Amino acid sequence: MAEPGAAMRPELTEARRDLTFDVEAIDESGQRSTVAIAGEHPLTLYVDRRELVTLMTLGQAPEALALGFLRNQRLLEGIDDIAAVHVDWEVDAVAVTTRAGASDFSERTARRTVTTGCGQGSVFGDLMAEIDAIRLPVEPRLTQRGLYALLDAVRRQETIYKQAGAVHGCALARCTDDGMDARADVLYYVEDVGRHNAVDAIAGHMWLDRIDGADKVFYTTGRLTSEMVIKCAQMGVPFLVSRSGLTEMGYRIARQVGLTMIGRAANTRYLLFTGAERFDR
Amino acid sequence: MAEPGAAMRPELTEARRDLTFDVEAIDESGQRSTVAIAGEHPLTLYVDRRELVTLMTLGQAPEALALGFLRNQRLLEGIDDIAAVHVDWEVDAVAVTTRAGASDFSERTARRTVTTGCGQGSVFGDLMAEIDAIRLPVEPRLTQRGLYALLDAVRRQETIYKQAGAVHGCALARCTDDGMDARADVLYYVEDVGRHNAVDAIAGHMWLDRIDGADKVFYTTGRLTSEMVIKCAQMGVPFLVSRSGLTEMGYRIARQVGLTMIGRAANTRYLLFTGAERFDR
Repeated sequence: MAEPGAAMRPELTEARRDLTFDVEAIDESGQRSTVAIAGEHPLTLYVDRRELVTLMTLGQAPEALALGFLRNQRLLEGIDDIAAVHVDWEVDAVAVTTRAGASDFSERTARRTVTTGCGQGSVFGDLMAEIDAIRLPVEPRLTQRGLYALLDAVRRQETIYKQAGAVHGCALARCTDDGMDARADVLYYVEDVGRHNAVDAIAGHMWLDRIDGADKVFYTTGRLTSEMVIKCAQMGVPFLVSRSGLTEMGYRIARQVGLTMIGRAANTRYLLFTGAERFDR
Repeated sequence: MAEPGAAMRPELTEARRDLTFDVEAIDESGQRSTVAIAGEHPLTLYVDRRELVTLMTLGQAPEALALGFLRNQRLLEGIDDIAAVHVDWEVDAVAVTTRAGASDFSERTARRTVTTGCGQGSVFGDLMAEIDAIRLPVEPRLTQRGLYALLDAVRRQETIYKQAGAVHGCALARCTDDGMDARADVLYYVEDVGRHNAVDAIAGHMWLDRIDGADKVFYTTGRLTSEMVIKCAQMGVPFLVSRSGLTEMGYRIARQVGLTMIGRAANTRYLLFTGAERFDR
């Protein structure tokens, strides 16, 4: 049974995989060398023993990924619904157990198909209907100096990308600027082979730690497509920053939900596309 | 009714969208400017009036994308099964009509869930079982000069990426080297907001034009993850080249199916990871 008002953390494994693997390669001059490449592992998600989806993941944060997937797909409504998250890499599986049990979950998912996170999905209409209801808070502000502090913090991050490439990174940060000093505290930094997995893992961490998105900045190395913008808005984060570019639909949805969206951001360069009213240069 | 042996091309629309859109942005110095961004449009795929999936696409090759999706998902077995592909951007839909009609199609898809192309899917087990049966031809060869000709041809391509970013590109090419002269003929170059859409569109073009993959090279700007390697192998193309890196599972599958896989390829640099026996430096 769900316990209203209970603020219990689910029972969790901490089952990280090796994140990089060494393989041999031959370069253009015929030289053999050892190259680090990123891991990629299937992880089949079961909820109350029911198989839901197989995610291909780096394996850095499998518990948070499973939770964030369920959150962003709107398959479970709150972290209090969840009793346990057990990852077992022996069988490439993550088992999520709800407090309510299988019947409640089945009812909630019966009318939907799992979406995809990559522009190949089938609940897009549902997501679009849902974002009509989202209004992001107007008060939070981000300064140019706060943004630069974030870009600097991200650049200094020790990453799998620097070692092995082939992954995308996402961060949730709090950027502050008291007029004298600007700083960015990176709360989470997650990388994954799919950019949507990295976003979902951040959403899972936020659920677990009961972090509100309203005064945070979401950073991604990936492109700002429609689903990325929708997920950021669903998490209630009013600032979305990317090293990469954006699509017209990402732009349109960002305007619709009132998101402050900044693209092509690296070092001291950026382009502010939407939500300029929250940004101080 | 399907007509055995019939080599008829399906009836096709040619319904391209505008591929870029101009929006206003503000840069770090406070300057406003007009920036081109890539289009992104939902395209809902119907087969014999049954809704299957919504793809988010640039809209460069929607008919080929629909066909390639059906091909790579193994939802239809041959191009001869297909009577017509009609894209209607008024309603963001593509209607595929089979020659056999709905009953045959329903039976074939009843036991499978649509996968995703981005590491968030549910037919991965099926795909892995299928690749056990794939053996790529060993005779085709690629020379370093042929590879350089391909990288040069790709670099010269007029692309949406150069204009607007935020898309991935894929090419199918024939690379030849007679010992005197190396050349690369790019048969198709498709860009899309999702890297898997671009691959699927190439697969659709190959189906339509009845192009065999055995003597071709597949190029992608995207990362060589498991699904990318699987799709290349399914298309029967023995050479896979990417500007980006690879994952451990992509590497493992490439070895398993005997694919010649080259990553981090740009200008005159590359790393040959698997299938060195088909490559002459």
